[in-house]
Amino acid sequence: MQEDRILRSALKSKVISAEESASFFKDGMVVGASGFTRGGDTKVVLKELAKRAQKEPLKIQLFTGASLGHGTDADLADANALIKRLPFQVDAILRKHINAEDLLFVDQHLGETSELLINGDLPKIDIAVIEATQILEDGSIIPTTSVGNNVAFMDMADKVIIEINTAIPLEIRGFHDIFQQGKAPHKKIIPITASDTRIGTESIPLDPEKIIGIVFHDITDMTGDIVPPDENTAAIASHILDFLGNEVKKGRLTKSLLPLQCGIGKVANAVMSGFLKGDFENLTMYSEVLQDSTFELIDAGKMDFASATSMTVSKGCYDKFMNNLETYRKNVVFRPQNISNAAEVIRRLGVIGINTALEVDLYGNVNSTHVGGTKMMNGIGGSGDFARNAYMSIFVTSSTAKDNKISSVVPMVAHHDHTEHDVDVLVTEKGLADLRGLAPIERVPIIINNCVHEDYKDEFLDYFNRAKAKGGQTPHLLDEVYKWHTRFNETGSMKA
Amino acid sequence: MQEDRILRSALKSKVISAEESASFFKDGMVVGASGFTRGGDTKVVLKELAKRAQKEPLKIQLFTGASLGHGTDADLADANALIKRLPFQVDAILRKHINAEDLLFVDQHLGETSELLINGDLPKIDIAVIEATQILEDGSIIPTTSVGNNVAFMDMADKVIIEINTAIPLEIRGFHDIFQQGKAPHKKIIPITASDTRIGTESIPLDPEKIIGIVFHDITDMTGDIVPPDENTAAIASHILDFLGNEVKKGRLTKSLLPLQCGIGKVANAVMSGFLKGDFENLTMYSEVLQDSTFELIDAGKMDFASATSMTVSKGCYDKFMNNLETYRKNVVFRPQNISNAAEVIRRLGVIGINTALEVDLYGNVNSTHVGGTKMMNGIGGSGDFARNAYMSIFVTSSTAKDNKISSVVPMVAHHDHTEHDVDVLVTEKGLADLRGLAPIERVPIIINNCVHEDYKDEFLDYFNRAKAKGGQTPHLLDEVYKWHTRFNETGSMKA
Repeated sequence: MQEDRILRSALKSKVISAEESASFFKDGMVVGASGFTRGGDTKVVLKELAKRAQKEPLKIQLFTGASLGHGTDADLADANALIKRLPFQVDAILRKHINAEDLLFVDQHLGETSELLINGDLPKIDIAVIEATQILEDGSIIPTTSVGNNVAFMDMADKVIIEINTAIPLEIRGFHDIFQQGKAPHKKIIPITASDTRIGTESIPLDPEKIIGIVFHDITDMTGDIVPPDENTAAIASHILDFLGNEVKKGRLTKSLLPLQCGIGKVANAVMSGFLKGDFENLTMYSEVLQDSTFELIDAGKMDFASATSMTVSKGCYDKFMNNLETYRKNVVFRPQNISNAAEVIRRLGVIGINTALEVDLYGNVNSTHVGGTKMMNGIGGSGDFARNAYMSIFVTSSTAKDNKISSVVPMVAHHDHTEHDVDVLVTEKGLADLRGLAPIERVPIIINNCVHEDYKDEFLDYFNRAKAKGGQTPHLLDEVYKWHTRFNETGSMKA
Repeated sequence: MQEDRILRSALKSKVISAEESASFFKDGMVVGASGFTRGGDTKVVLKELAKRAQKEPLKIQLFTGASLGHGTDADLADANALIKRLPFQVDAILRKHINAEDLLFVDQHLGETSELLINGDLPKIDIAVIEATQILEDGSIIPTTSVGNNVAFMDMADKVIIEINTAIPLEIRGFHDIFQQGKAPHKKIIPITASDTRIGTESIPLDPEKIIGIVFHDITDMTGDIVPPDENTAAIASHILDFLGNEVKKGRLTKSLLPLQCGIGKVANAVMSGFLKGDFENLTMYSEVLQDSTFELIDAGKMDFASATSMTVSKGCYDKFMNNLETYRKNVVFRPQNISNAAEVIRRLGVIGINTALEVDLYGNVNSTHVGGTKMMNGIGGSGDFARNAYMSIFVTSSTAKDNKISSVVPMVAHHDHTEHDVDVLVTEKGLADLRGLAPIERVPIIINNCVHEDYKDEFLDYFNRAKAKGGQTPHLLDEVYKWHTRFNETGSMKA
């Protein structure tokens, strides 16, 4: 134990081993765990729980901020330890179990989970497992590299286990901004008027009586590799940067644009890195997750401030951040995910949202989650929080997948996550379709011309022309709307 | 001219006839007109424009708050006077022209139109035509029975024509609360913390130099007939009232519930009227449109306050309101529709939203707009503003239509307006499905048991069981997902 990690002395007696912590869990319990896209996830307690579940019947409902790292989701799923999992995941093994219907997965807007908990629409949390840097004198805790749903979990839980991560420097204190809106009809205004507005406290309040165990570890967050942009992602990034440059020329935006939100992944990272070269300046982010590109832009003096609930970066970037906390203190804040993803703030600030689609359709509807319309990939994440409320909502995808055997632009998406109402701009490596203010039948030719791969253009036009001849606001031929999908299932290719 | 209707004397010279006002319009112009579900619509100027368009080529883009009354939309459509129409309509003749692709219709979230205008995502307004009660000394105007998008239209327009409606008593002054949020990144907080919070002014600011004409008329809003609840609507209302009563018993809500929002129509009206009998008290509304039931509840002492952007009522209710303005002054406020439908306020107050579906599917997705998936009925209206941000989002529909030949619950909706993420409770006359916190495959048996008509249950179960056997997060058989719809098109019935 490091003495300076627990400032409330009476709690030092609560320190236990990870193995001991697992004994607190009972079959059927609801567990709320920290962790958002591998940032600040619980790293040892749930691993021990999975070990117990390998030996005895022990199943829990597991709620988190978003995805976990270190294979924890895989361990739990393989141990058959999950009854229900929400609100997001990215683990290949957990995904396999979800699609085999071995457990229940609830795919939620990430900004709403804590609301549902507070409203009593989800079961009460029995035990919260929260990674922290430090416990303060008043029992409140300093989080690590994410805030996620920790505030709600700790508030709603009967009991709390704290994982103190000694690999995180104490100097991370002050990077978090903790705010609780309360419960309707007495919810507070979220008084954020810019990405860098601070409205709360640096620690998360906690009744020390709730703490049943404190576990020490020194395991850092899982880091990722930076995937260099390929030809397609570079083209997508270039289309977006040209488009935003033109918006500046037309006087609709300034060179600082508006606060940016970017989904996770190589396309998003490529777009953000593109700002290094462009004419943009004094950029800001009001986003969910910070990636390497955020820190590159800050280092280059292009970005003034970035607000998020978590970070998921490469090893190099992680080390750079931790070794230079004093430098980044003026540039970065981590908020609870119901604040980073708050409809109220996103619409007020006028966020420009850039998110990834699995497939899009000829009217601009987006499938973000379901492969072939039925199998879960990751989850909707925060894309709905941002797309609905953004100043401008941009969705990106490669025009094809699997050696052109799949067109990512289809007559009708096989699962609807975002409707045409919430999609302003579509981008593939082929080009960009600006759909703002357009009626459905105006959108189609632009999407076909600008975004569809040439291998699919003719069949697309044929479909649309035959549908349009039958009239309607949104012409379709319902008996062949998923013909491309069923053809792929039968032949291995969407092509005729 | 009534002298007390124009308090700024210099403007009295601008009074013209309706016929003269039509001469200001040029082919290709963009017109922003007042009017929201027949409340406070422009009643004479656009009618004259339609007459001109019958004789000469004259086509405009027409933006409004929502639907117009008095057949204005029909006149314009029949005169081929519309290039583009947005954001909502309910006119049978206009609908026919939309579905025949005679004009372009953009179906928008009603809370977002003014944002799109302010952001420059829609073309600039050439002429705004606004119904008013009075023009004040400073040139600002007192609206009539709706505020709608008037604030944005008047702000963004080059020129403004005012229709002064002398049938509206001057005493309506004070019923409106006008607030402008401004433009990102400098948008203001909307400081509403309860339905009755007043945050603005009683008149809409207007540069008097913009006024090119003032037209007098004394035509009241079109009123509707109250449709008494039939067996189905009464059953739906009863299910909802029982459900909310249980939420109170469980301690999740108080007897005042939370601010209510209700879509337009007989089901909504029946639900609201149901509160007259129940145990509820001190109810409030934070809604889009006030109907007869609102005033019944206020008269009965059951409702304390109602906030909306418009009213659409029966003749009797309209007269009662106008003859008792002093009585209702403490109970009612009309706000701009970007404030009545603001994501920020809806989520903060914790609104309970009740909206009507055309069809719903086995996972809880909702089609609010497209008959058979392709033909526009009315539009999404404000349902998306409320469903996404509500404390609880309830959708209602009869389980069948057309003598049971159509099941309103289908395997997959043929058009997606609201995804399963935004639908908490589904209600048909058969029963209520509480979907909160449930994974997709948990939702299905509850919807089938509680909401589906008995004529369709067996085929539904068969479909779901075969789909589920193939696995996935959201099981479907894409090659037969719209079989019921195509069967209806071929045979006139969805039944096998």
